[in-house]
Amino acid sequence: MLGIGEMGKRHAENLRRLVPEARLVAVADAFPERARQVAEELEIDNSYGSLEAMLERKDVDAVLIATPDKFHATAITMAARAGKHIFCEKPLALTLSDAQAALAAVARAGVRLQVGFMRRYDPAYASAMRRIEAGEIGEAVVFKSIGRDKDAPPISAFQANVNGMLFYTNTIHDFDLARWLMRDEVSEVHAHTTVAVRPEIGQYGDVVASVVNLKFERGAIGNVESYQQAVYGYDVRTEIVGSKGAIFVGTLQQTPAIFLSANGSTQNLADHFLTRFADAYLIEMRDFVHNILHDKPLRVSGEDGARALAIAVSAETSYLQAKPVKVPLECSVTSS
Amino acid sequence: MLGIGEMGKRHAENLRRLVPEARLVAVADAFPERARQVAEELEIDNSYGSLEAMLERKDVDAVLIATPDKFHATAITMAARAGKHIFCEKPLALTLSDAQAALAAVARAGVRLQVGFMRRYDPAYASAMRRIEAGEIGEAVVFKSIGRDKDAPPISAFQANVNGMLFYTNTIHDFDLARWLMRDEVSEVHAHTTVAVRPEIGQYGDVVASVVNLKFERGAIGNVESYQQAVYGYDVRTEIVGSKGAIFVGTLQQTPAIFLSANGSTQNLADHFLTRFADAYLIEMRDFVHNILHDKPLRVSGEDGARALAIAVSAETSYLQAKPVKVPLECSVTSS
Amino acid sequence: MLGIGEMGKRHAENLRRLVPEARLVAVADAFPERARQVAEELEIDNSYGSLEAMLERKDVDAVLIATPDKFHATAITMAARAGKHIFCEKPLALTLSDAQAALAAVARAGVRLQVGFMRRYDPAYASAMRRIEAGEIGEAVVFKSIGRDKDAPPISAFQANVNGMLFYTNTIHDFDLARWLMRDEVSEVHAHTTVAVRPEIGQYGDVVASVVNLKFERGAIGNVESYQQAVYGYDVRTEIVGSKGAIFVGTLQQTPAIFLSANGSTQNLADHFLTRFADAYLIEMRDFVHNILHDKPLRVSGEDGARALAIAVSAETSYLQAKPVKVPLECSVTSS
Amino acid sequence: MLGIGEMGKRHAENLRRLVPEARLVAVADAFPERARQVAEELEIDNSYGSLEAMLERKDVDAVLIATPDKFHATAITMAARAGKHIFCEKPLALTLSDAQAALAAVARAGVRLQVGFMRRYDPAYASAMRRIEAGEIGEAVVFKSIGRDKDAPPISAFQANVNGMLFYTNTIHDFDLARWLMRDEVSEVHAHTTVAVRPEIGQYGDVVASVVNLKFERGAIGNVESYQQAVYGYDVRTEIVGSKGAIFVGTLQQTPAIFLSANGSTQNLADHFLTRFADAYLIEMRDFVHNILHDKPLRVSGEDGARALAIAVSAETSYLQAKPVKVPLECSVTSS
Repeated sequence: MLGIGEMGKRHAENLRRLVPEARLVAVADAFPERARQVAEELEIDNSYGSLEAMLERKDVDAVLIATPDKFHATAITMAARAGKHIFCEKPLALTLSDAQAALAAVARAGVRLQVGFMRRYDPAYASAMRRIEAGEIGEAVVFKSIGRDKDAPPISAFQANVNGMLFYTNTIHDFDLARWLMRDEVSEVHAHTTVAVRPEIGQYGDVVASVVNLKFERGAIGNVESYQQAVYGYDVRTEIVGSKGAIFVGTLQQTPAIFLSANGSTQNLADHFLTRFADAYLIEMRDFVHNILHDKPLRVSGEDGARALAIAVSAETSYLQAKPVKVPLECSVTSS
Repeated sequence: MLGIGEMGKRHAENLRRLVPEARLVAVADAFPERARQVAEELEIDNSYGSLEAMLERKDVDAVLIATPDKFHATAITMAARAGKHIFCEKPLALTLSDAQAALAAVARAGVRLQVGFMRRYDPAYASAMRRIEAGEIGEAVVFKSIGRDKDAPPISAFQANVNGMLFYTNTIHDFDLARWLMRDEVSEVHAHTTVAVRPEIGQYGDVVASVVNLKFERGAIGNVESYQQAVYGYDVRTEIVGSKGAIFVGTLQQTPAIFLSANGSTQNLADHFLTRFADAYLIEMRDFVHNILHDKPLRVSGEDGARALAIAVSAETSYLQAKPVKVPLECSVTSS
Repeated sequence: MLGIGEMGKRHAENLRRLVPEARLVAVADAFPERARQVAEELEIDNSYGSLEAMLERKDVDAVLIATPDKFHATAITMAARAGKHIFCEKPLALTLSDAQAALAAVARAGVRLQVGFMRRYDPAYASAMRRIEAGEIGEAVVFKSIGRDKDAPPISAFQANVNGMLFYTNTIHDFDLARWLMRDEVSEVHAHTTVAVRPEIGQYGDVVASVVNLKFERGAIGNVESYQQAVYGYDVRTEIVGSKGAIFVGTLQQTPAIFLSANGSTQNLADHFLTRFADAYLIEMRDFVHNILHDKPLRVSGEDGARALAIAVSAETSYLQAKPVKVPLECSVTSS
Repeated sequence: MLGIGEMGKRHAENLRRLVPEARLVAVADAFPERARQVAEELEIDNSYGSLEAMLERKDVDAVLIATPDKFHATAITMAARAGKHIFCEKPLALTLSDAQAALAAVARAGVRLQVGFMRRYDPAYASAMRRIEAGEIGEAVVFKSIGRDKDAPPISAFQANVNGMLFYTNTIHDFDLARWLMRDEVSEVHAHTTVAVRPEIGQYGDVVASVVNLKFERGAIGNVESYQQAVYGYDVRTEIVGSKGAIFVGTLQQTPAIFLSANGSTQNLADHFLTRFADAYLIEMRDFVHNILHDKPLRVSGEDGARALAIAVSAETSYLQAKPVKVPLECSVTSS
């Protein structure tokens, strides 16, 4: 396990306690003391302050990468060269050329790579996909997705400059869902963005909210909204409308309890992605471990990572140039 | 009452039976026999085959226009010249120059004009507006709206060529909501559209579905989706997300009855705008009649009609030219 | 129209404005001045201070009774003797012997009588019944119903002593639904009641809340709850659970608008029966008028009124004697 | 761990993998081969074919009992005599005298006992309780609870005769919630039951469905429904209505996905208690282990178990004798 932030620690906990097929032998983090503490807390035998050191271990078959976005591509390349299979959190990289370099390293090494689009494992999204594949909504015509976080990152997170802008950290999930659920490629994007209510993040090249119009290869259309600080809760919803019906995924509820008074009814709302998608992260990790061990195809390939990245890059270009932008469809080296 | 189609007949019924302050003295329609039948059915004393004939009546103080879109501007001009107050269904016109001509005639005649954006009267939208005005969601950042019809018009409706394309017949309601609920003007639009699943309407210059990105003057953003044939129901929903909270308007339910079986739970869905907005149309008509009689300001002015139209025109241009389009902000003569 | 309280006035408005087949020729009320005012407001030509006076009119074909409960049976008898058809609000009477006397008078006069169980006309309940009759839930096993009012009547309403206790004013709707939706008769009841939070109404023989266990003839069971002052809203819900599925009727929502903040999501709740059941009252009145005019069977007979009353009387006995009580199944004279 | 059925296995998995404070050293089951298999699957070192054998281990500090109901009381007594702390699944016993004997053994041995009313740990119920304790709904007046299972046990389960009837296996959860959430004791019950749609279980002294009227010590009332085969899903809901507001706990949804077609909207429903209450079982086990280790008071005492049992026994008596039955309030020896 490389990178023991909030996300990396959740992956480590899942692997250690809930994925019996895996054995988590080591954790590494740029902050060796943090790696040591987490190793102790989770009863993992080894901790390291660098990826290099950890890669030397012969008993490491696969590496999980959950560092800040900026280091993903390099870490993939290093792990591939060391002959390890790889699970990398989204986004695959922050530029298309970095992504291609990483995928090339993976291909050369003959190892396998999965990207962390865990929503595909969410039971609600998975059931939606089954019904789409069964033809229940007919031909898909409109794809809509919303991703709202409750609390925006602190200003220091923008200053650190180790993650991509909103399209790479948040919207990329919806870009992947767009490709996956529509079973089609996105061919053009147009973005409107705003720094309203938090203009200070503009200087770090980021935005508070965005709406991105999508056009799909086969003619369908869509729109994806992202918002960093919805205040009221963590709110992820998707609608796919087709010629014979529609599917809505997502709900706001945190617990099934309603409080009623003379002022109306009140429900608590979900507040965090690790709450809403707790199951998805676990199922994802079990699936990755199982497929690696049994030499089965991985469910979310490096190419999936590259294609979602291509949409994010195009959305950023649309935002910077204030015009619609074609998405490059020949963007990646085959991998996985 | 001019124009006794589905919408015109509902207005006539409301006026005749449920708006005690009004007296509906005559109906006119290009099909005189239809006008006669409706007059008989609703016990209205007079029917006409043309607007001209009806306008000669001295006891007509105000005219309601519910003809096909194409005839709105001319009918407004004629009614204004005859010195009658006017209620006109949306859209005000199909071009900005027609709209300006109509508003100029209204201004010259010193009569008053209201445009039929009845969603402003819907109890749910009205309560949303009250909470926005009370500052409960803070500064509005994102505006999202969906308008899906259950059944698309028959092909003959496109062939007749008397109504505007999707942006004018359907999306214009959301354009008005955008201006009204955000208390701001839309300054730029970008549209993606599709004729998927019904390519034959393309030859009539129309589209099956659209997503329109919005940019607002003060920096907020938004997106509006319209879809002519959602199959599953009539589905109108709006979300306004602000710095302190959000408001969602709209629901899918038709009746509060749920049927549960081993296959899951099922609810009937609303299927028609006259069902969902029955109250709004009635409240609108009462308000118009009351304000005309008591010489109070009208709630939805001709300028509101012209500004929503300007957004629709820009959306159409964006669709035709495949690029973002600025919305002209100085688009209308003051009226009402 | 006899009795122009809140309910009577709504019936009068519906008849006057929204039931074209009917002509409302006169209203009567024990307070002649109130009758006169309502007649003026609704443009009804005649008003009376007593039923006797109104019954002398030859142009009155049918009488609607919306007086306090206590006077229902006598009013029915008088109207029947005068040869008028009758629509009487629930309950039919406050004792079984009064009910039987009234039904006997109706039968002797050869007139027709409908009782005001308007929930049968509510679109949600009506659709539930259609699905039950179509066999969609299989054999019905459990009947559950809740009737909660938002605001309890003022203490003066109890002092006036013109209405029955909770079982007669509120629960009787659920007793009728139990018979109607289960297509079976209630054979035994057991009641627990409370005057908690308002002990002072105990002296008037009434209770604040009740739960009544039901046993049906063919073996099904059920429970009905009534609560006079739920504070949070007007809340009427019913569940019928069967061998193949279930149906839930009822919802709490007032308008389809949701307000979301960091404290959760909030919805306004329905607050009054005239809001929740506005459609039902209108459809009921149209149906009654239509069936009387065209000599068709009435939808809710006097016997229906008597049977629901028998359950209410038994529930009161169970409450007074603190034991389960058999419901008399041979309780009424056939009518209508 | 004693008893490795569906429930026992879930407890064992939770303890083994998700309760780091605990070490699960042995499992026992009347079927030694099953105990051995589960031990192997969960990597537990020891397995036994009897409680006696397992109790001899010095390294066992606490015993979890998840046998069929009939053996609970005896197992508690044996474990207590061996000086082990005890967690016992509900019901504590099947008769009040067995319960008292078990509690007496616990008291004599000076060990501690918790009963498995895990709903108290469910996040939704727990949040409801916090709001009740904070006074948000004022004085509680009506308690309503529904417990419907999707699939009834096979006939062999009734023939085995090792569990109590519906009141002991299902309704007892609601009886505990009634005491806990109302912060009051139940003083009288009245039951109506049915074997409709499955008359053959009548010969085993069980019923398919029941409604139980409740009266509370301080005057509130309530009703609890249980149904063994709701077909449409696993449906557990509770409403507490008070003088200032109400709280509803429970929802039907399985995943937050809605499928919409021209026939309406459909949602999958929860189908099993281990799905709906997965979190509650885990939190419960962590809490028990933590409190035992740190010598803190247990959250659900043996007396809680005895009192809920007393209500179940009274409900059974009411069913058998067809009359309301007082609940004995002095029913237990203090324990824990």
